Amino acid sequence: MSDKRFAVASEQSLMRVFTVPEAPDSTLSKIEAEISSNLAGFLNENIAAVEKPLHEIERDFESAQVPEEPMFVSAHAQDIMEKLVAHSVHTAAPSFIGHMTSALPHFVLPLSKLMVGLNQNLVKIETSKAFTPLERQVVGMLHHMAYGREQKFYDKWMHSAKTSLGAFCSGGTVANITALWIARNCLLKAEGDFKGIGAQGLVSAMFHYGYKGLAVLVSERGHYSLGKAADVLGIGRDNFIAIPTDEDNKVDVAAMRKEARALEAQGIKVMALVGVAGTTETGNIDPLNDMADLAEELGCHFHVDAAWGGATLLSNNHRHLLSGIERADSITIDAHKQMYVPMGAGIVLFKDPSATDAIEHHAEYILRKGSKDLGSHTLEGSRPGMAMLVHACLRIIGRKGYEMLIDKSLEKARFFADLIKSEADFELISEPELCLLTYRYVPEKIKARLQQADEQTKLDIYAALNRFTASMQKRQREAGRSFVSRTRLTPAAYGYQPTVVFRVVLANPLTSKAILKDILAEQRELAASDPMYKKYLSKYL
Amino acid sequence: MSDKRFAVASEQSLMRVFTVPEAPDSTLSKIEAEISSNLAGFLNENIAAVEKPLHEIERDFESAQVPEEPMFVSAHAQDIMEKLVAHSVHTAAPSFIGHMTSALPHFVLPLSKLMVGLNQNLVKIETSKAFTPLERQVVGMLHHMAYGREQKFYDKWMHSAKTSLGAFCSGGTVANITALWIARNCLLKAEGDFKGIGAQGLVSAMFHYGYKGLAVLVSERGHYSLGKAADVLGIGRDNFIAIPTDEDNKVDVAAMRKEARALEAQGIKVMALVGVAGTTETGNIDPLNDMADLAEELGCHFHVDAAWGGATLLSNNHRHLLSGIERADSITIDAHKQMYVPMGAGIVLFKDPSATDAIEHHAEYILRKGSKDLGSHTLEGSRPGMAMLVHACLRIIGRKGYEMLIDKSLEKARFFADLIKSEADFELISEPELCLLTYRYVPEKIKARLQQADEQTKLDIYAALNRFTASMQKRQREAGRSFVSRTRLTPAAYGYQPTVVFRVVLANPLTSKAILKDILAEQRELAASDPMYKKYLSKYL
Repeated sequence: MSDKRFAVASEQSLMRVFTVPEAPDSTLSKIEAEISSNLAGFLNENIAAVEKPLHEIERDFESAQVPEEPMFVSAHAQDIMEKLVAHSVHTAAPSFIGHMTSALPHFVLPLSKLMVGLNQNLVKIETSKAFTPLERQVVGMLHHMAYGREQKFYDKWMHSAKTSLGAFCSGGTVANITALWIARNCLLKAEGDFKGIGAQGLVSAMFHYGYKGLAVLVSERGHYSLGKAADVLGIGRDNFIAIPTDEDNKVDVAAMRKEARALEAQGIKVMALVGVAGTTETGNIDPLNDMADLAEELGCHFHVDAAWGGATLLSNNHRHLLSGIERADSITIDAHKQMYVPMGAGIVLFKDPSATDAIEHHAEYILRKGSKDLGSHTLEGSRPGMAMLVHACLRIIGRKGYEMLIDKSLEKARFFADLIKSEADFELISEPELCLLTYRYVPEKIKARLQQADEQTKLDIYAALNRFTASMQKRQREAGRSFVSRTRLTPAAYGYQPTVVFRVVLANPLTSKAILKDILAEQRELAASDPMYKKYLSKYL
Repeated sequence: MSDKRFAVASEQSLMRVFTVPEAPDSTLSKIEAEISSNLAGFLNENIAAVEKPLHEIERDFESAQVPEEPMFVSAHAQDIMEKLVAHSVHTAAPSFIGHMTSALPHFVLPLSKLMVGLNQNLVKIETSKAFTPLERQVVGMLHHMAYGREQKFYDKWMHSAKTSLGAFCSGGTVANITALWIARNCLLKAEGDFKGIGAQGLVSAMFHYGYKGLAVLVSERGHYSLGKAADVLGIGRDNFIAIPTDEDNKVDVAAMRKEARALEAQGIKVMALVGVAGTTETGNIDPLNDMADLAEELGCHFHVDAAWGGATLLSNNHRHLLSGIERADSITIDAHKQMYVPMGAGIVLFKDPSATDAIEHHAEYILRKGSKDLGSHTLEGSRPGMAMLVHACLRIIGRKGYEMLIDKSLEKARFFADLIKSEADFELISEPELCLLTYRYVPEKIKARLQQADEQTKLDIYAALNRFTASMQKRQREAGRSFVSRTRLTPAAYGYQPTVVFRVVLANPLTSKAILKDILAEQRELAASDPMYKKYLSKYL
């Protein structure tokens, strides 16, 4: 009897979760109100400044049992404030300049809630209706931003059932994979008795076309997702050939041409060239026009990974930096990077609206031929209506607003570069072309010592400086006041040796020049107390 | 001068977007308040009941120009209420039983906002911190739900830097691709001089291992994403062999064994068997234990696509339906289906924690060896913290709550099946094993006519019934009161001919028995006035 009463009571309370909104005075509603009225304050107050070691955080996430009993929403909310929110990363903080995440425009918060409440599924019209034309428009707008075709072109193709001007993706990796999937399938298309690689697979395709292998050529600064694409698509990471870059971290197109010719002489077909428009590490842009020329010579696909740099096309003052991108067969852009959209919005664009024919697929219950279901041209299936947030940003910020944000970020990077160069104990490693730069801290005495060192000593000091830089970066992160990331480059100034550097991305509109000065001051302090300095560097003085 | 004033003013207004929250009395805040206090009412009032034709909706999304000038948030909000929200699909409506989307628990709305506000990037610890252990715990909980290993196992592996018990994905398609990517790479692993398919590609791998081809065997009811996986991975759609199903839409394992043996006799290696645990069209579960036996015999990977059915494991009363799943090498589960999480939460689980070694990747600036960055074992790169919503649902609903939801949905499906069978003019096509079923409307007179028809007349009537069923489904959707989807099956009752059927998914906890009765009543009315009935069916009477 009591058991049955319990069951009835809990069924009712369970149903309430689906029918009764959170009360305005509930713990969760209070948290939400705080986010709504003062997001920056909420993040500053609730994210712990000093880093808790990961192994301690893990203790709060140890049980592998789905809890048997339901839990009150308020208890859960309280719990995650302490265990999750407090130990998150303050990605929006203006002094956290090591990531590609930034402060977000406030309006995306209520709009995200609307998006979740509507819970559309963009795989098909039947679960998205107006969201499908909206997503097609967003893709069309970005296509226009990159390729600048006349409105007539968009009138014809943007809402066409047969084609797609691009595909919305969860992120740049899926966008890059989709682009190269299409490149592969277009190259190895159906012909005569051969039904195409999509149907018969890679081995039959190579046999049919008589290629000994496939290769993709990309700058050594290409994003690691390209290696993943090579693996997934069956081409192999070794056949994604890294081409050296020049002093400015731009790919050497002459070297690329030489490599391509050598491969073709061996019967290896160059499937695609990948240009990078904003390398992840240094923000440099490959010579896209030269690459487009080479791709034409080779008769191969030309993809541009503009996950980071694509937004620069919105600035009339700087879009020339990406000149040649309009000649690319496909382009990756991440709206969750410098377009200030929350995480989860990658896009791949196709110059030719029929490019997606190469990957078209259908099913009995959806994606029927002739339908406008977006899912027939995407790698992913069910997907949320993230396009709604890109649409909102494009309209509310507008092209001119983006231009201002982008111009400011480039100007800020220039300022920071000059500041670094003016300080005797800092060293700029890569000049900013967009709003990324790399640098390091090298005590003046070490600089002087390096001047007179023999080759072996130089190498030893380089190794010590690497340890020191990595240690400083880690300690700065742990202190929690600011954050720069780190990577490893091979600059000429260090004899092309692997060189650990600080990396910064200056896209957050809230990052001020004063903050940048503070970051250098903090690093100078950290350097003075760094254990790696004492252990490995001081002996050279 | 005035130009400069304008520029300053707009820079200020632009910055306000990043610094000043939406005012409580703004249009967007009012919309948000309505969602918070009465989501169901908001959706009912703001989504237009009667369908507007798609080509008319498209007119509102025609321009391919990124707007030059910024727009007020309030103007944008107003605009999307009329143009987007009004013409969205009411996926949460209890009478919309044709999708796999359902009403959501209310607490996911404020939590989604928190997630967006925190804007973590799960690719690496540096941009997610506590979110990484949280995601590992969620994956661990689902692993435990499926594989039920002892806590010691999870203590060892759940937070290990070297391994992953699974991967969080944007959806089931990426989960299925990831599983088969791993299966492919494990099969064609490094050996001797061969560096593995990941490095050298598929052609070298086949040459090294001496296979003439690869094949994957799956039920003819397998999800279309598996074909996509075959294409992407270079195996080819033709080498994903569809095996017939029995009367209950479960794969015929004897036929699968025969096919596998025939392939192996030709030198074609069976790379994987894929079992379906909840087919998309009928909700049936393949004989997983028999398939596991066969996979052992063949020495191949056994993947189970439980995107839909996986949640059933949370019910102790029904988890036996998926018996054998614990023998699978990998399992796909979609939390945005019957786990009531918003769109965008797929998961793939691996029995063996070292499975992801086959796809491990690193980069200079993140995913360094030894780091706990989740991105070194995922197909995707940057990803949002969706795991937070799965975590919340698992804790707040609890296993017992899920059990109740799942048991109720199965009971409701049983009720609806019996109801359909009790009506003389309806016909149940597939019995519900989970909460999916298919049926159609066949006027009694037509049923009688079919009894006496010769073969050709039967086929003609079948074709006419197909047109009639498709027309009814479309008209019901357009009327906007309720929604069932449709698919095409080949039931024995229709001589294995392609047969268009209504398909329903009864997972929405708010769908009542009264609503189900109304849906049949509405369909009976629609049938009476259907133009396809008059045009193609009436002549047989």
